[in-house]
Amino acid sequence: MSILVVGTVALDTVKTPFGKKKDILGGSATFFSLAARLFSPVNLVAVVGRDFPEKHIRFLKEKGIDLSGLAVEKGKTFRWEGEYGWDFSNPRTLATHLNVLSGFNPQIPEKYKKSDYVFLANIDPRIQMKALREMRKPRVVACDTMNFWIENRRKALLELLKRIDIFFLNESEARQLTGEPNLVRAARGIRKMGPSRIIVKKGEHGSILFSDHSVFCTPAYLLESIFDPTGAGDTFAGGVMGYLATRKKPGRLALREAVVYGNIMATFAVEGFGPGRVGKISRRDISRRFRQFRRITSL
Amino acid sequence: MSILVVGTVALDTVKTPFGKKKDILGGSATFFSLAARLFSPVNLVAVVGRDFPEKHIRFLKEKGIDLSGLAVEKGKTFRWEGEYGWDFSNPRTLATHLNVLSGFNPQIPEKYKKSDYVFLANIDPRIQMKALREMRKPRVVACDTMNFWIENRRKALLELLKRIDIFFLNESEARQLTGEPNLVRAARGIRKMGPSRIIVKKGEHGSILFSDHSVFCTPAYLLESIFDPTGAGDTFAGGVMGYLATRKKPGRLALREAVVYGNIMATFAVEGFGPGRVGKISRRDISRRFRQFRRITSL
Repeated sequence: MSILVVGTVALDTVKTPFGKKKDILGGSATFFSLAARLFSPVNLVAVVGRDFPEKHIRFLKEKGIDLSGLAVEKGKTFRWEGEYGWDFSNPRTLATHLNVLSGFNPQIPEKYKKSDYVFLANIDPRIQMKALREMRKPRVVACDTMNFWIENRRKALLELLKRIDIFFLNESEARQLTGEPNLVRAARGIRKMGPSRIIVKKGEHGSILFSDHSVFCTPAYLLESIFDPTGAGDTFAGGVMGYLATRKKPGRLALREAVVYGNIMATFAVEGFGPGRVGKISRRDISRRFRQFRRITSL
Repeated sequence: MSILVVGTVALDTVKTPFGKKKDILGGSATFFSLAARLFSPVNLVAVVGRDFPEKHIRFLKEKGIDLSGLAVEKGKTFRWEGEYGWDFSNPRTLATHLNVLSGFNPQIPEKYKKSDYVFLANIDPRIQMKALREMRKPRVVACDTMNFWIENRRKALLELLKRIDIFFLNESEARQLTGEPNLVRAARGIRKMGPSRIIVKKGEHGSILFSDHSVFCTPAYLLESIFDPTGAGDTFAGGVMGYLATRKKPGRLALREAVVYGNIMATFAVEGFGPGRVGKISRRDISRRFRQFRRITSL
């Protein structure tokens, strides 16, 4: 089944201990799509400026991503610049230029409106809601968010959460949203806000899935070569949603498997600068790593 | 088979967001023993001062721990005082009074010298080595250490590591010891120093076992009630070694199971102040949590 993603397509400048890359392809919708397309058809909604390189559009199209929803507007593309230290956890943001993103008003192409799965990447919850309202009865709606919206758009976010099935967030966001330091209790509080499934992303420490009556903890796959963690979270979500969308009605096992696929996709993301590596891998690479993952996590 | 532990028995003053406890039973050998005794017989070597409460000695004896190696010396017992914030990770050390520990010269009782398993808890590596030299061909020797010894007793620690089978340490210690930020490479570097098995303790994020040709990652069990993380690492080691010592020659599966038991014992440790909870549980509680652990971590 098809997935709609509403998010950003950006040009990132990233500095890590291994080097610096300027204006490489980035953005939440980009990372998400490149991961999800390996499992299911992806429809992308985002905005770029007239300066956005044609080669990136060709690259995304070649990967089978439907770009009918990618608006090209007057002005410059959203740019982000960040720097990672040796621990590769939270980057230091050096610059954020919203550019055309500041007026982002997502138009959902008619043919996208029947997408079965929807992923609303981290943008203003009012825009996430607006996009969601245009959809015709999607089966599964997921979203991501960030500390800024939790603090400054709390009301809109809570409205949105009522309509969300799967909520992706990190530990500190879960605590911030609920005021509850314990993660188990925080997840319980968030489930009362709407989402029946919560996936807590812990980066290099794996992830935790909270659903009705069960919890599923996964460690992260261990990597020897980490180059650039940018986009790992969206790539993770792309793996989860992409795999889920291969099912009509994903049950308990499919959901757990999806989380493992999410973890695995994220490992490919961090092994190269930008989405380079995720753009190159095949289903076979994924299956191989899935088997390895099971070997290093099973008794 | 029996386990010898050489470490500290202390009086801890601990402050957490849930309250403050003064001069409660603590110390690496205490936490280790209380966990390990649930699986195998434990012989303890440590030193306390004459002020050490008789009730603690009774308590440890009642739990079946052999205290023939607990020296009571003139002076005061080793005291540690620390404070935890809401994240319950690294405590802020408010005071350390070595007292009788500063002259600790472990005497291994004759009947202990044939212990099959040895755990050298975190003390000066020269003292760890001295204790180890008194042992008669133990089957498995494990040790723990800390940043202070890596920095200030590096040579002695490297000498010791040549004779270690299982090395328990945390992520930052692994990086500090090798100068290698990547954990996979750091572990490879440490294995060249001697220990064929390395267990990296990641606290609330679980643990990673590195052995000859395999890696085993476990997430931590999720807890709703964390009261006091003091001693979690030693309780973890107690679970690992205690379970291993039920085997003559632990193979790959036993080692993985041991790590899971270590994780589980650590969860009991943090659920109460000091070793209170670990002192009360039974093998049945452990088995129940082992099953739950498998449920929340298996596909």
